[in-house]
Amino acid sequence: MISVEEAVARVTAAFSPIGTETIALSDAHNRVLANDVRAKLSQPPFPVSSMDGYAIRTEDAPGTLPVIGESQAGKPFAGTLSAREAVRIFTGAVVPDGADAIVIQEDTERDGAHVIIKVSAQKGRHIRIAGLDFKAGDVLAPAGKRLTARDLALIAAGDIANVEVRRRPRIAFAATGDELSRPGEPRKPGGIVASSVYGLSAMIASWGGEPIDLGLLPDTIEAFTKLPQVDADLIITLGGASVGDRDLVQRALEPLGLKVDFWKIAMRPGKPLIFGSLGDTPFLGLPGNPVSTLVCAMLFVRPAIAAMLGTSGEMNVLRVKLAASLPANDSRQDYIRARLTTRDGEHWAEPFAVQDSSMLGVLAAADALILRPPYAPAAHAGDPVTVTLLAP
Amino acid sequence: MISVEEAVARVTAAFSPIGTETIALSDAHNRVLANDVRAKLSQPPFPVSSMDGYAIRTEDAPGTLPVIGESQAGKPFAGTLSAREAVRIFTGAVVPDGADAIVIQEDTERDGAHVIIKVSAQKGRHIRIAGLDFKAGDVLAPAGKRLTARDLALIAAGDIANVEVRRRPRIAFAATGDELSRPGEPRKPGGIVASSVYGLSAMIASWGGEPIDLGLLPDTIEAFTKLPQVDADLIITLGGASVGDRDLVQRALEPLGLKVDFWKIAMRPGKPLIFGSLGDTPFLGLPGNPVSTLVCAMLFVRPAIAAMLGTSGEMNVLRVKLAASLPANDSRQDYIRARLTTRDGEHWAEPFAVQDSSMLGVLAAADALILRPPYAPAAHAGDPVTVTLLAP
Repeated sequence: MISVEEAVARVTAAFSPIGTETIALSDAHNRVLANDVRAKLSQPPFPVSSMDGYAIRTEDAPGTLPVIGESQAGKPFAGTLSAREAVRIFTGAVVPDGADAIVIQEDTERDGAHVIIKVSAQKGRHIRIAGLDFKAGDVLAPAGKRLTARDLALIAAGDIANVEVRRRPRIAFAATGDELSRPGEPRKPGGIVASSVYGLSAMIASWGGEPIDLGLLPDTIEAFTKLPQVDADLIITLGGASVGDRDLVQRALEPLGLKVDFWKIAMRPGKPLIFGSLGDTPFLGLPGNPVSTLVCAMLFVRPAIAAMLGTSGEMNVLRVKLAASLPANDSRQDYIRARLTTRDGEHWAEPFAVQDSSMLGVLAAADALILRPPYAPAAHAGDPVTVTLLAP
Repeated sequence: MISVEEAVARVTAAFSPIGTETIALSDAHNRVLANDVRAKLSQPPFPVSSMDGYAIRTEDAPGTLPVIGESQAGKPFAGTLSAREAVRIFTGAVVPDGADAIVIQEDTERDGAHVIIKVSAQKGRHIRIAGLDFKAGDVLAPAGKRLTARDLALIAAGDIANVEVRRRPRIAFAATGDELSRPGEPRKPGGIVASSVYGLSAMIASWGGEPIDLGLLPDTIEAFTKLPQVDADLIITLGGASVGDRDLVQRALEPLGLKVDFWKIAMRPGKPLIFGSLGDTPFLGLPGNPVSTLVCAMLFVRPAIAAMLGTSGEMNVLRVKLAASLPANDSRQDYIRARLTTRDGEHWAEPFAVQDSSMLGVLAAADALILRPPYAPAAHAGDPVTVTLLAP
């Protein structure tokens, strides 16, 4: 058995960034940049007013000034402002050459062709200098960044219509087991409904991969023969990795080119997980208990996809307080399903009483996984614990 | 000016849950359930073994027992187990009638047609009782729940292939302003590139809406005439809601049926925001500064969509420590862009030095918004503050 840490490191090391494609910015939410994106212009491209008012020279205020023109957003004043002149200006409009301050509308009074500036002015006040937000050539978002909605706005402001991103890694998966049927289809005697493939598929998509559902495989050697031909960046089986069934997956796949890197991890839920390669394609055999399947997917498939995208695979980790005591841990790293609550402005993690790895109901109701390292001593209510937030 | 709280309440009250559609479970990630989803079967549907080993009667261990058959997942033992008999059993297989314990493989020794049980047995040990995870008829996910990947797995386990969800609210938006051009297209004199529409569109989609980009509108009355005919659940304009421009949006839309509910909010960034209706369609005029646009969208468009989906629109709020001092606040509720860091297991929010509402670079770099209520007293480094996590 190897540690979770070592297993994650070995899995991650087996992948490197894959090919790229250029797509429209409007399609790029949550995609990962292949290159730094640099601004094509400065923002603002010129000094602009941040308020409605009058552009003047500082030394001319207070006073009564002739209004020699108007600068609107998208309709700049064509001339230059000279001493003892004012230009009517609106939010977002170019500050005319010669002006060095904006006096806001509320501090003025219009008198026909003149404006009465009732206050003194402050140099640069209410002027956004050119390049305040960013300058032409600045990196707006670095290679490896997963683009947020806010990034898209920023990149658009930099006058960039298309971005080069990593293509989506193709993640093919097959659930194994004679007992499985699809939801809504006739069930077999002693059979159950295939469940974790639906969660895994959605997770793969949310992590930036392209899920490829290879279907349900019966427990026969023959069922596996097509796996090595699958065109994918990672091939996954679900189930058949525990002691009794282990022989099947390994027996079926070894003659087809399976090379096993490791196949047992000191963790709970989980443990029987095969990692290696099938021909040239990385291969992951996830345990079949649905909670184990999905927790192991979070721990190993997510960083594998992140490595292929060239981005950080770090999970959303938080320090909170433990709401109930937990016994000392054994040799396996534990991922305890828990609810998060807030009391008196503090965040608490409340472990579910039953942690059976078959119980999807508990996993679905959980907000977080409490991380319990191997041999962690008993923990008490109020102790700080590290939790991984479960994704929506 | 009204408070953020009142504004959110008024916006939310203007929407109610919209129509539904039935879709395949595999397409339902992040969709919102219209009805409670109830399990069609119990899970497990029958008692199953959680380990590989032998099914026996408790009172027969330890001892040597004839192995009368085998129960595999999906291939149950057909008969009944009697006194002083054992059935070979595998993980996930049905526990034969008559057996009340599983002895794990490691505690046994096989001797031809017999098995030597080397330990005593414990009633119910390693048996998952029928309905351990859920029972037929149990609510697996309630109406109004936004479905997670884990929910999909749970619902699949309940033998449900299709779910009834709210349709995606149609959110139509148009940016106004003579100064605007699209990224990569020729810019106008004194013009800038439309940016926040790209962020808004991605946010709408991530909140469960269908974004409809109506394009860029010039600052003319005529440009607005088609807005009331748009087939949408919410019509949004960006820009043109501040003092100087206010007349345009209101002047253009009032003859077309705009009814204003309120149009100023005590908040920063933001303030000039119009909410009302355009004919029968709710209407929202967002401020034009891009940071104001996007923060106001998070505050008002997100709960509007949530109300249409019949789900909770609560944001991801956290209590952390303030990493730098902040001055006393004025009458406007402040949303301060900040970075989150973790030091010594504690979470800190570090406000950006410059908070100008035109600076998308700062918004994109931020992890969270520090909430500063109106008239909040000066805050010091180490004080607890409430932050809203910004979405990826």
